[in-house]
Amino acid sequence: MNDLLTVARIIGAAQRIILTGHIMPDGDSLGSVVALGLALETQGKEVIFVSGDPIPAAYAFLPEANRFVIGHLPPGNYDLLLVLDCSTPERLAHVCRNHPLLNENSVCIDHHASTTLFCRYNYIDPHAAAVGEIVFDLLQVLGIPLTRPIAESLYVAILTDTGSFRYENTTAATHRRVAALLDTGIDPAAIATRVYEEKPLRGIRLLQAALASLKVSPGGRVAWMTLDWGTMQALGATDADADGLVDYARIIEGVEVAILLRETAPGKTRIGLRSKRYVDVNRLAALFGGGGHPRAAGCLVDGQPDEVAARIVPVAMEAAGE
Amino acid sequence: MNDLLTVARIIGAAQRIILTGHIMPDGDSLGSVVALGLALETQGKEVIFVSGDPIPAAYAFLPEANRFVIGHLPPGNYDLLLVLDCSTPERLAHVCRNHPLLNENSVCIDHHASTTLFCRYNYIDPHAAAVGEIVFDLLQVLGIPLTRPIAESLYVAILTDTGSFRYENTTAATHRRVAALLDTGIDPAAIATRVYEEKPLRGIRLLQAALASLKVSPGGRVAWMTLDWGTMQALGATDADADGLVDYARIIEGVEVAILLRETAPGKTRIGLRSKRYVDVNRLAALFGGGGHPRAAGCLVDGQPDEVAARIVPVAMEAAGE
Repeated sequence: MNDLLTVARIIGAAQRIILTGHIMPDGDSLGSVVALGLALETQGKEVIFVSGDPIPAAYAFLPEANRFVIGHLPPGNYDLLLVLDCSTPERLAHVCRNHPLLNENSVCIDHHASTTLFCRYNYIDPHAAAVGEIVFDLLQVLGIPLTRPIAESLYVAILTDTGSFRYENTTAATHRRVAALLDTGIDPAAIATRVYEEKPLRGIRLLQAALASLKVSPGGRVAWMTLDWGTMQALGATDADADGLVDYARIIEGVEVAILLRETAPGKTRIGLRSKRYVDVNRLAALFGGGGHPRAAGCLVDGQPDEVAARIVPVAMEAAGE
Repeated sequence: MNDLLTVARIIGAAQRIILTGHIMPDGDSLGSVVALGLALETQGKEVIFVSGDPIPAAYAFLPEANRFVIGHLPPGNYDLLLVLDCSTPERLAHVCRNHPLLNENSVCIDHHASTTLFCRYNYIDPHAAAVGEIVFDLLQVLGIPLTRPIAESLYVAILTDTGSFRYENTTAATHRRVAALLDTGIDPAAIATRVYEEKPLRGIRLLQAALASLKVSPGGRVAWMTLDWGTMQALGATDADADGLVDYARIIEGVEVAILLRETAPGKTRIGLRSKRYVDVNRLAALFGGGGHPRAAGCLVDGQPDEVAARIVPVAMEAAGE
């Protein structure tokens, strides 16, 4: 592991930079890439923004979102591969995964505790709420001032990775960095509206279908919802539309384990598990061949949602002491 | 209107204080009362916390929430009536509304642009995101340090009145104040969970019923949901449970006007109206005898939700240019 000054020196010495985040990009990955890319360009560097997957509609408003090169790399003499918010080489865009620069001159900046050190230089701070926070600090080390587009991008990164400042990773330093971003005159309310308050109708229809299936165990400690393949198909719903649905079961008072069972292909059901206080859903998921964290885990099993529910709900009830 | 120093002087000179917010109390009203009350007690003052209505379950975790006196006032020689977050005398607890101190020695601290100056002394700052922000500044003027319970209460006030820092009222100064609150060691994630992530099952069932009724106009600019009296009764749902439901219609992409029609008594339907960008729903509500703001308004009309929808939806479609 290297320190931030070393990493800043490597980046400062580069001239033509490939800058990338992780596949299935989120707000922190995209916002951090845009912010750092724009900042480095103010120093006369050439930067190419690479993504392994298309930019999700919710982030299309980001400054320079249309500059991302998806799935290919224009020819050129690059001298640095700069990777943000990516914890394993498997999450790199395909075109970066086997790039010669990975061994020669590459920097990874990340905040996942589990990050593999797969770049030549690595700066990993698991205490950072978002990679956007590290980029903020890096710009100070590099002496690059915040412009509005840079501040906007960092705001998106921090806003999304802290769940609107509600997650445990949020610190006093987070709010101080955000205050400095707002000092540039960006409009945080407009950004929050774009990120959180524009959903396709099919997303609301999917929520409707999920809630219609909501069941709660007799003791009230387990709540589950099912979405079958026919419903997903009929609504034209995507994986992104299903994001966060399980939370509607989790927030019910008294519920300890929340489960979403979603048929992602005929006869294949993805189980999403959440717990509130004491059930280790990572262990629960492991029983079905999956894994994750103590409070959030998942697995993919054979069977239709209702059949799978009949198998996992009793186990979840036992784990919840019901 | 008085300045903050004058108001601080009046409060500093008082010894036995009646402290109150507004009826149907929210997070800013309750959090500000608790924070200022605890702070003044550290100065040796006696403070009685008064509420016109019971403390909502979502705020029962606030420090000293059980100290609120509801609907009555213990006898005593009070020398100051201190009113927070209350824009008109009609929103005062009944026992404060006609209290002799109102004319003799009373202070109102508020942030509503429309506040009537009904106290002897008044400090109104419409630029404050929450009264909690003004109390934060007042404590600095009074030289009272932040303790954890004070910081927790102010955090609740600011968190809720900024919609988790997403509303337009959020400024860089808001984030700086919040950073200082977090410096005391409070747990913002635990607070956010208590405020936002614990809903009674009946609230989720009400959302389910509302979404099941969701209709969208042919052009996609108007979306509406209906909840009839029977549904409200069957679920035992309260007004608080219905709070925010209209937002599920508002966030649909392309929707300009969102409407929730809820039967609050047999044959009486409350219309909640929201718009996104250009329709003045205040004018729309006025056509039905109601009012509000350009982007949020409401009215109460005779009729059942479906009948009322048949009358207002066409008008909303026309207003939305459909």
